[in-house]
Amino acid sequence: MKISSGGKFKKPLIFAPQIFYMQVWKDYQEKNKERFLSEMLDLLRIPSVSAKSEHKQDMVKCAEAVKARLLEAGADKAEVFATDGHPVVYAEKIIDPSKPTVLVYGHYDVQPVEPLNLWHNPPFEPVIKDGKIYARGSADDKGQFYMHVKALEMMSKTGTLTTNIKFCIEGEEEVGSTNLEKFLRANKELLKADVILISDSSMLSMENPSIDIGVRGLSYIQVEVTGPNRDLHSGTYGGAVANPITMLAKMIAGCHDENNHITIPGFYDDVVVATEAERKLMAQAPFDEKEYREDLGVGALWGEKGYTTNERTGIRPTLELNGIWGGYTGEGAKTVLPSKAYAKISTRLVPNQSSKKITEKLLRYFESIAPAGVTVKAVDLHGGEPYMTPIDSDAYRAAAAAIKQSFGKEAIPVRGGGSIPICAVFEKELGIKIVFMGFGLDSDNLHSPNEKYNVANFYKGIETIPYFHKFFAEFHAKAQNS
Amino acid sequence: MKISSGGKFKKPLIFAPQIFYMQVWKDYQEKNKERFLSEMLDLLRIPSVSAKSEHKQDMVKCAEAVKARLLEAGADKAEVFATDGHPVVYAEKIIDPSKPTVLVYGHYDVQPVEPLNLWHNPPFEPVIKDGKIYARGSADDKGQFYMHVKALEMMSKTGTLTTNIKFCIEGEEEVGSTNLEKFLRANKELLKADVILISDSSMLSMENPSIDIGVRGLSYIQVEVTGPNRDLHSGTYGGAVANPITMLAKMIAGCHDENNHITIPGFYDDVVVATEAERKLMAQAPFDEKEYREDLGVGALWGEKGYTTNERTGIRPTLELNGIWGGYTGEGAKTVLPSKAYAKISTRLVPNQSSKKITEKLLRYFESIAPAGVTVKAVDLHGGEPYMTPIDSDAYRAAAAAIKQSFGKEAIPVRGGGSIPICAVFEKELGIKIVFMGFGLDSDNLHSPNEKYNVANFYKGIETIPYFHKFFAEFHAKAQNS
Repeated sequence: MKISSGGKFKKPLIFAPQIFYMQVWKDYQEKNKERFLSEMLDLLRIPSVSAKSEHKQDMVKCAEAVKARLLEAGADKAEVFATDGHPVVYAEKIIDPSKPTVLVYGHYDVQPVEPLNLWHNPPFEPVIKDGKIYARGSADDKGQFYMHVKALEMMSKTGTLTTNIKFCIEGEEEVGSTNLEKFLRANKELLKADVILISDSSMLSMENPSIDIGVRGLSYIQVEVTGPNRDLHSGTYGGAVANPITMLAKMIAGCHDENNHITIPGFYDDVVVATEAERKLMAQAPFDEKEYREDLGVGALWGEKGYTTNERTGIRPTLELNGIWGGYTGEGAKTVLPSKAYAKISTRLVPNQSSKKITEKLLRYFESIAPAGVTVKAVDLHGGEPYMTPIDSDAYRAAAAAIKQSFGKEAIPVRGGGSIPICAVFEKELGIKIVFMGFGLDSDNLHSPNEKYNVANFYKGIETIPYFHKFFAEFHAKAQNS
Repeated sequence: MKISSGGKFKKPLIFAPQIFYMQVWKDYQEKNKERFLSEMLDLLRIPSVSAKSEHKQDMVKCAEAVKARLLEAGADKAEVFATDGHPVVYAEKIIDPSKPTVLVYGHYDVQPVEPLNLWHNPPFEPVIKDGKIYARGSADDKGQFYMHVKALEMMSKTGTLTTNIKFCIEGEEEVGSTNLEKFLRANKELLKADVILISDSSMLSMENPSIDIGVRGLSYIQVEVTGPNRDLHSGTYGGAVANPITMLAKMIAGCHDENNHITIPGFYDDVVVATEAERKLMAQAPFDEKEYREDLGVGALWGEKGYTTNERTGIRPTLELNGIWGGYTGEGAKTVLPSKAYAKISTRLVPNQSSKKITEKLLRYFESIAPAGVTVKAVDLHGGEPYMTPIDSDAYRAAAAAIKQSFGKEAIPVRGGGSIPICAVFEKELGIKIVFMGFGLDSDNLHSPNEKYNVANFYKGIETIPYFHKFFAEFHAKAQNS
């Protein structure tokens, strides 16, 4: 067995590489773990909400902090690149051009925090309770990409880095990564790599580690329904003028049929139906419906007829209402017949659906079904293509081996329900495949009040990532030599 | 022809009473018109929003101002009565126990002002533009009840008051008049009168003066739909859990059938169907559909099949969505599957529907149709019974004669679409009939941004009201003597 190494530790590696690495990293992490955590908390304190223009300066501040941490962690160079939106942080440590290069992608921007009143602590003042870090961005994605920063530190400070490593940490993941796409196109050479490694998803549990093999695509639109040209008295005009809330409700109600299939014409046209083999494999993932229901506090589950819960959130496209508003929403009673009503509506897409095509279908659909008496304006807010990762690549095998090494268990391949719009763009622009190593949990309250990330998961990620680099370098060398 | 009078002007009245009165009132109003208007604007500057607890002190301030204005206008006594909610202002001027007594009812509370960004001027900083007073409460109801205060001044300062007059100006009309009901029950003797006169509605136009012969009842509820126990990531859970917005939309969409009939079981059970004779009379009211549509900026009207627009807003019960909210409603895209969605829903009721019964039906209906996976909590926010006024009474005839006198045209009797919940309560508690003399216009933007009241209508009201008192006293005396 031929082992690649990062230079000065060449000799020992030939003799007992696994154990040696393990002990060095274990020692380093043990000695520095409190600082690792405290640095991550500092990052969480920056309110880097990309969707809100009021946080523009916080975004710059956060990007600069990420750059500084990367340099401290051992990057040879790091730079904050301005874009037409929020900046991108790039960093690299090149140890040897003949070694494979891992490009770590992550995002320092976070979701909005509303509704604020449901948070138990201010979302940008992290609190650790029962081993959980509560703060906006703790799991999505600051806590997760920061594991890679600390893994870099661990490998570079102990001289055990066996790959070249690049970082691309953006600030617009939560709003569609529009400017990252331009950045990728303009910096193909800079970003050249053999694999993209992303920790921005979850695993089943610490007991059942898993690797996402795909993410769903996204089409996110906003619908504005206008009835009368001004708010009216519902007594004077009620019953004689189309109410935009009622009309919007009718349009939304019609989006799913009695089997909860989506009714948008042509919506399922391009869906690649999962094979029976894949469905059988999925069915092996542990799932306790009662526990799932109880965790969510619902009496019954809901979804597309003919599919299990895991299939509904993994291999099937969905349509969800993300927000709705119109008329009087304050205290007490106001008898108004409003002029306008709005909804935010998103669909999750599976291979081989096209976000662009579905967005067009959605926009056209809502505009075409406007009942008489109202007008409908639908706009594209956000989108991204679905993405599947190959499971027969060196990179996937390296991720599986790394998880086996640190968890002592085989990783279960699963399809994630969420979306990372930039995945398909990375592949298109850079021609590189992605591997997902998510260490979050579904219960982390992503995009919700009281987002959290378990301290144990943070440390486990830092422990696992260096093995990925190690195994990836080994498999790569093997392939070169075979 | 025997004429009653108010004392010292007895002699002249016998000779040329109409002309005499007209000139005296005309002169008085002409001399004082700027002050009348300026006093009304001062009242509009007090933000007396009854629905919002933050305005509790403004309510007291407004009640005290109303009391002070009534005393200045000639009331013998005036008092602010505390209630469990906002205070009631009572005032009276008793000229002669043998004369009939008119009880003027009005309200000094106003609707909430949201959405604030649609106002052209701050809602409590009145602006007069093109002969229109823009401010919250200008038409509903400060500007209208204040016409009666100024009519009192005009009659009492010129010694031409021919009736006893009482005022009951409350502060909770916009939130259901709950405490007024208790006040009426406790003060039956104090409030004893021969008729209740209300200016809290509109007329067709200055060219087509009209008198409301009824108001619709109201049942106003709020529906809260709960899905999962917390906001969820719509990627992770979307498609597997019932979305409360979608479920609420389905419930709302089902409230009207394809003919826009309301589907709540038993909703129409007690409706007194208008006679063909009444429908024919209604059809004579001028109505230009094109103008109506253009004023509202809608391409088509909407409503219950089989009824005209005037019928839909007058003689038929309706169900309207007054507000809806849930999930993310801010800038940009947030991929959340919300825990809760809410709607404010109200129905307008016609004789002989019972607000209490309909509210119960509504609450029960929404709770009973909750789809699996969500729970529904519905609460009663506000209600009031429908009310019809007899058109063969002395009071109605006095109102018609007063309008004929000041407008030079016959008043058209119409059924108003709005609700004045206290009407039915007045009749029940005090056993007195109501006459409506509304001087507003449907285009006054009641309950909406840019509420306005035309200066000309304000003055026309002040000109008309004294004639009501004069004719009512005359008809009353005639009846006594016949």
